[in-house]
Amino acid sequence: MTGAVDVSVDDLTTPLPPLSVAGRLDRLRAALAAVETAGDRPEAMVVTTPANVRWLTGFTGSAGVLVVTGDHALLATDGRYRTQAAEQLAASGVAADVDLCIGGVVAQREALAAAASTAAAVGLEAGDVTWVAVHTWEEVLGPRPLVATHGVVEGLRVVKDAAEVTRMERAAAIADAALGAVLPLLHRAAGGEELTESAFAAALDHAMRTHGAEDRAFETIVASGENSAKPHARPGQRLIRPGDPVVVDFGATFDGYRSDMTRTFCVGGAPTGELATVFAVVAESQVAGVDAVAPGVATGDVDKVCRDRIAAAGWAEQFEHGTGHGVGLDIHEGPAVGAGSTAILQAGIVVTVEPGVYLPVVGGVRIEDTLVVTDTGSRPLTRFPKDVPV
Amino acid sequence: MTGAVDVSVDDLTTPLPPLSVAGRLDRLRAALAAVETAGDRPEAMVVTTPANVRWLTGFTGSAGVLVVTGDHALLATDGRYRTQAAEQLAASGVAADVDLCIGGVVAQREALAAAASTAAAVGLEAGDVTWVAVHTWEEVLGPRPLVATHGVVEGLRVVKDAAEVTRMERAAAIADAALGAVLPLLHRAAGGEELTESAFAAALDHAMRTHGAEDRAFETIVASGENSAKPHARPGQRLIRPGDPVVVDFGATFDGYRSDMTRTFCVGGAPTGELATVFAVVAESQVAGVDAVAPGVATGDVDKVCRDRIAAAGWAEQFEHGTGHGVGLDIHEGPAVGAGSTAILQAGIVVTVEPGVYLPVVGGVRIEDTLVVTDTGSRPLTRFPKDVPV
Repeated sequence: MTGAVDVSVDDLTTPLPPLSVAGRLDRLRAALAAVETAGDRPEAMVVTTPANVRWLTGFTGSAGVLVVTGDHALLATDGRYRTQAAEQLAASGVAADVDLCIGGVVAQREALAAAASTAAAVGLEAGDVTWVAVHTWEEVLGPRPLVATHGVVEGLRVVKDAAEVTRMERAAAIADAALGAVLPLLHRAAGGEELTESAFAAALDHAMRTHGAEDRAFETIVASGENSAKPHARPGQRLIRPGDPVVVDFGATFDGYRSDMTRTFCVGGAPTGELATVFAVVAESQVAGVDAVAPGVATGDVDKVCRDRIAAAGWAEQFEHGTGHGVGLDIHEGPAVGAGSTAILQAGIVVTVEPGVYLPVVGGVRIEDTLVVTDTGSRPLTRFPKDVPV
Repeated sequence: MTGAVDVSVDDLTTPLPPLSVAGRLDRLRAALAAVETAGDRPEAMVVTTPANVRWLTGFTGSAGVLVVTGDHALLATDGRYRTQAAEQLAASGVAADVDLCIGGVVAQREALAAAASTAAAVGLEAGDVTWVAVHTWEEVLGPRPLVATHGVVEGLRVVKDAAEVTRMERAAAIADAALGAVLPLLHRAAGGEELTESAFAAALDHAMRTHGAEDRAFETIVASGENSAKPHARPGQRLIRPGDPVVVDFGATFDGYRSDMTRTFCVGGAPTGELATVFAVVAESQVAGVDAVAPGVATGDVDKVCRDRIAAAGWAEQFEHGTGHGVGLDIHEGPAVGAGSTAILQAGIVVTVEPGVYLPVVGGVRIEDTLVVTDTGSRPLTRFPKDVPV
């Protein structure tokens, strides 16, 4: 029985460079001027997606609407965020660029309508506003036409700057350290101690927070034994037993930015039989995918590299999800890394590479890293070793 | 310095009665026939809200669309949920009532279109579908008209049955026990030990899971000192110090059902000065609100009872949120308990009562319970004492 894996956490205490929030509003204005539309071109944009509002202004409240016109911006939110909103706009260096309206629903709508009044047409985020909200905006902003826009701010968020990557690296380092800290639980399970998937997930989540995460990045997956064959199993009361594969898919959030990593362990020693082949094939596929990540490469080609290795082993049908996705303020963002994806990688894009094979009786294996594309290839943000015996 | 509060957890191990999922589809059909609409009456319903899909079928996956017609129902989801979806429909007793389509996007759309093909008009959940999704549904289901429906399934969920209330009671008992278990951290902070808001929140979240919660019910709020004056503060690195008010607003999730409770502690002894008055006024307001909860009462009147007490103390403007909300599979659901709310309480409705007063320098106090309306009044599900010294 071995102990905790001591993952270096030296960089967890290094001060981080400030985020460069100022300037992003002008990038949105430029993007808006370039939106391709069959009808009216939006001269203003209503931003409702929380991660987009945060990226543009630094405001992290759960409720806030930002209107951006050619020469003006207004953030409207309610009284719960009176102090916080003012503090966060100031800390982001945009207090002079973004007016603030704190008030009830009616006051907010009036202020937003006034702010958008110079625009002939107004863009909404069509992937975020609900059907009900579209009708409300028609009442608030009418008679000016509303234009459905698609991923305008998200497009700007795809390439991360150095300050953003530093935060994601910190999130990944926290996740690495946390997994190292709770690994003894798996060793003890290998030795026969009772450990449920749910208890291991709870310990891992808690370890991420005690190591400095503000939160987990998403609901942690701990899937053992037959559950490992379900790619999106939720941790349950199943006991983790010697011989089990255990898929652990988790991440940390640090200053809003997320990490994403999967490791699959085999409890109590190296896997045997068909499970050993699954481990080897997925590991080889994942390394090949990581090696393929470089500027200029289409994400669909990264997927193909991973998929081909698995198909060659006869498990094409058992790898039934995409190879990866972008990560940032959201756990799933652009670009997609799937079959036929046409996005071209460039330095500063952060993606996951996470092939998996899931066999009903034998079990499932998934291995995932989060990588940042560099000028010459990629650098892994998640660094926990892949060959730790438990 | 006192120790943990020993909250009875006897009932945490009692087996729970099964949920009565079967029969809910027919209730939806009846509700659909009664939908008031200016145009076409929907003869089928596309259910996309995850909590609604779960309530109607027992399926808990993150992606699933349910189509319900007069005599048929189909759940479409992707390969990640192949095993889980079949298991959960069977466990809920609706396997014979709900067909299952597992496949990619195209296959799912074809199956959903085929399932809805007998309906002249189809209802969408207008508060859930995005503008993008409305266009997709127009393509998938056209040329039949789509009807915006509002809260049809949510309306059915407002009154909980006994099996649902039992789960919420279990969630609340877990939350009570968890708070009792971590209270020594506050005692030690009163004695001068370092404790950040964030560390206390992490300990509380972890305690809920070790006590049997599948998760927290929402992001736990721990707001101390000046932060307590922000109703929706996120726990941060502030140290909790003697003399601080500490607002702790949290809940547990058990079998999908949630609890919601707020306690405000004063660290290191009874509050003094204006803060003592705030504590007394909010406590009195909350008790009055709880006493007002009974069948036949309009929720706006519960709000008024709370608000009047606080206004009488001169703090009408410092209670800037509603008195409460319904709780169930969602942490915020119907009915609203706010100024002018017209919903009429009836047995089985579960609501919170959570008045608060927030004074910038002095601090904030909020006290909240989750209550189920009974035939004669109400019963609190959250039972942690309100007068525990820390």
